[in-house]
Amino acid sequence: MIEQSETVSRYWTACEGRDWAGVGALLAEDVVYDLPQTRERIVGRERFLRFNIEYPGDWHVTVERVVSEGRHGASWIRVAHEGSELSALSFFEFDAHGLVSRITEFWPTPYEPPGGREHLVERY
Amino acid sequence: MIEQSETVSRYWTACEGRDWAGVGALLAEDVVYDLPQTRERIVGRERFLRFNIEYPGDWHVTVERVVSEGRHGASWIRVAHEGSELSALSFFEFDAHGLVSRITEFWPTPYEPPGGREHLVERY
Repeated sequence: MIEQSETVSRYWTACEGRDWAGVGALLAEDVVYDLPQTRERIVGRERFLRFNIEYPGDWHVTVERVVSEGRHGASWIRVAHEGSELSALSFFEFDAHGLVSRITEFWPTPYEPPGGREHLVERY
Repeated sequence: MIEQSETVSRYWTACEGRDWAGVGALLAEDVVYDLPQTRERIVGRERFLRFNIEYPGDWHVTVERVVSEGRHGASWIRVAHEGSELSALSFFEFDAHGLVSRITEFWPTPYEPPGGREHLVERY
């Protein structure tokens, strides 16, 4: 069994390459994809691949960080999409075969900092 | 040196307990705290502790996931704050002494799902 960090890295490489067979080979057939911000859930490899294939617009992934430990993994990626860039944070669970059984993914967006902490922070 | 997952778990336990000496003991003196959504940065243990101590309102942390690998770690927590609940995703870096040298933290918020994918998703 390969290390799960390697699986996560392969997953993003395959996504970026639109290698959907390659992505599918890393996923359990009953993989669950959760988006807690919208409380959306996609169940099953075929639906999840379709979701990605149908996703509108052009997008490109840069992997910023991958961490794994046992049956859990996490990644932080930057995604360029239609002229803007977002970060995505993904938490992976793996089954006994090393296949991805669950992805919980977050897509935070920029916001203006609240006041009252200017004495502690700098902007970058 | 203790495992870094243990350091991350201790960090959140100490935060929840407002044990600021305990939090500080886990941090490098020149720790950097980045909030990419607002492009805010706090440099140094004392300022970072002050930021947490001064943070307005009551808040409570529930740890959902901790993953670490070598000098990197990640956590997914749920934070109850003023009647609502948010997730926070934190990526940790550790120095050679096992102290936290950088935290990059994301605070995604709920949003309405875009249309066009209702045939693939369920809501939870």
